[in-house]
Amino acid sequence: MIRIAVDAMGGDRGPDEVVAGAVDARSDEVTPVLVGPPELDTQGLELIHAPDVIGMDEKPTDAVRTKPNSSLVVACRAVREGRAEAVVSAGNTGAMLAACLLEIRRLRGVRRPAIAVTIPSPEGASVLLDAGANADARPEDLLQFAQMGAVFAEEILGLRNPEIRLLSIGEEPEKGNQLTLDAHELLAASDLNFTGNTEGRDLLRGGADVVVTDGFTGNVTLKLLEGTIRNLLDAFREEITATARGRLGGLLIRPAARRLRERLDPDTYGGAYLLGLRGLAVIAHGNSSRRAIANAVRLAGRGVANDVTGRLAQRVGDTVLESATSTTPTPT
Amino acid sequence: MIRIAVDAMGGDRGPDEVVAGAVDARSDEVTPVLVGPPELDTQGLELIHAPDVIGMDEKPTDAVRTKPNSSLVVACRAVREGRAEAVVSAGNTGAMLAACLLEIRRLRGVRRPAIAVTIPSPEGASVLLDAGANADARPEDLLQFAQMGAVFAEEILGLRNPEIRLLSIGEEPEKGNQLTLDAHELLAASDLNFTGNTEGRDLLRGGADVVVTDGFTGNVTLKLLEGTIRNLLDAFREEITATARGRLGGLLIRPAARRLRERLDPDTYGGAYLLGLRGLAVIAHGNSSRRAIANAVRLAGRGVANDVTGRLAQRVGDTVLESATSTTPTPT
Repeated sequence: MIRIAVDAMGGDRGPDEVVAGAVDARSDEVTPVLVGPPELDTQGLELIHAPDVIGMDEKPTDAVRTKPNSSLVVACRAVREGRAEAVVSAGNTGAMLAACLLEIRRLRGVRRPAIAVTIPSPEGASVLLDAGANADARPEDLLQFAQMGAVFAEEILGLRNPEIRLLSIGEEPEKGNQLTLDAHELLAASDLNFTGNTEGRDLLRGGADVVVTDGFTGNVTLKLLEGTIRNLLDAFREEITATARGRLGGLLIRPAARRLRERLDPDTYGGAYLLGLRGLAVIAHGNSSRRAIANAVRLAGRGVANDVTGRLAQRVGDTVLESATSTTPTPT
Repeated sequence: MIRIAVDAMGGDRGPDEVVAGAVDARSDEVTPVLVGPPELDTQGLELIHAPDVIGMDEKPTDAVRTKPNSSLVVACRAVREGRAEAVVSAGNTGAMLAACLLEIRRLRGVRRPAIAVTIPSPEGASVLLDAGANADARPEDLLQFAQMGAVFAEEILGLRNPEIRLLSIGEEPEKGNQLTLDAHELLAASDLNFTGNTEGRDLLRGGADVVVTDGFTGNVTLKLLEGTIRNLLDAFREEITATARGRLGGLLIRPAARRLRERLDPDTYGGAYLLGLRGLAVIAHGNSSRRAIANAVRLAGRGVANDVTGRLAQRVGDTVLESATSTTPTPT
């Protein structure tokens, strides 16, 4: 039985929505464990007490330090203490990152954890990372993101020998900024199935299994993708409902529109992994619905069942050992 | 009469498409002047001879240096020599940039030219820059992009006191990478109407008149935006045509779909300005249609009529003088 700690107080829609999602995710394999105040209506789920709450607008590091008994920090601590194997929160992303680093801590050899987001596409899902854990990154970070993304693609998306690409401004190796030029060299020299650069235009077309980028570009990209899809569908509805003919057509295409929305719905995945920790953490959207929460808990369960953390430790650990033997340290 | 040099050999669709577009753009105010080989069918337009051609896949700086008689380089030289007031090309973007720097040269005080792209939105167009002239940028570059973008928004989009925003990963000033954090400070201290950060999700919603970013992020953003719009409309068509009901609905919403496509069509603007030169340059899409070429020539004409180059020289020149008086140089 896999136990998943769920931060009941995270998310814009309030604890009832989170509890409902956790209840929906309960199965023969997965037991959600709520973390929140004693008075919470748990709908029969187990509760770990945590009296405090971290708000969406609080400063991440301050909040985590001054509120050790907040639902978010206690949920992360539950993973450290072995009371749960993974944590899910739809709360403040920055605070989640800080709490995970403090309580769950990084895997040995991991320079920086990365947020791995699943991007839906007609040709099958792909994973984009880092989607925003680190605003600034170095070439070696991007190499590690690629290694971690490969494990994610293998274990969660079920792909063999996943194709890795670097997000850049042209497919040629000499196109990019200094960061991507240097990262390109490292990736090309690695044992990964690295097939070169990819451009933003191919992201929704499933141009690669794993798309690697720094957290700034990744976060801009992700928000742009979500915003463009939403704005475009809204603009389309507006044009359609502007005429009687369009409104009739709109009624007829409603099932098609629903299928498209489902294909692109971020709730289908429910959340993003924070990869590179000594335990599994899933960050859900702030405005997660009950369905999104349930899928985030299932995603966490799948990660535990496939031992993503162990595979990451092995993969990144191997690299650490390799580089330890292949590099002679230079005294400075 | 405004003379615009048009690189007849630039663009994926061949010279006939470019010539047709140039002919369409001819008006009482604008005279397109073609640049290409003597045997070109000019449809009655004036021709400046240029025997060579730079291909789309050639290395920009090498191509420009080894082919001084290529249509692209000769078209840029025509601006330098006063035979034209602006240049338009749908050819190799990197070569265009190199040829412009070599032949037209930067305005005094401009650190790096920037590509300014018009982003359509239901709330009115906005301008994004740099869309890819410089993959790496410094905070001072971003400040200059903002100054140049303000001139563009005033003169080309007709906006008074345009609102400037910085593309980042959160609206709060403390969100961003080192580049945007530093640029934020410079922008906040400037005399521009800077209203803070904007996120990718607001780009198509017209969240600002001028959106400033480095050329790497800007190029990724622009391609993602174009690709997402295309992929999404394709996916929608696919879903609609999957059922008989959907196909009937699709027929009825066809006019609405056409209106939406027109609202978002990059051909409406035809091209992007390369700002910061001693003359005007418009870069058109490689696969520009006749309509796109015509609009690019008109865009160039509008820039000359509104003296964008003079206004840029004044704006950036003022800043150069200001900083010369306010900063004491430190000997190193």
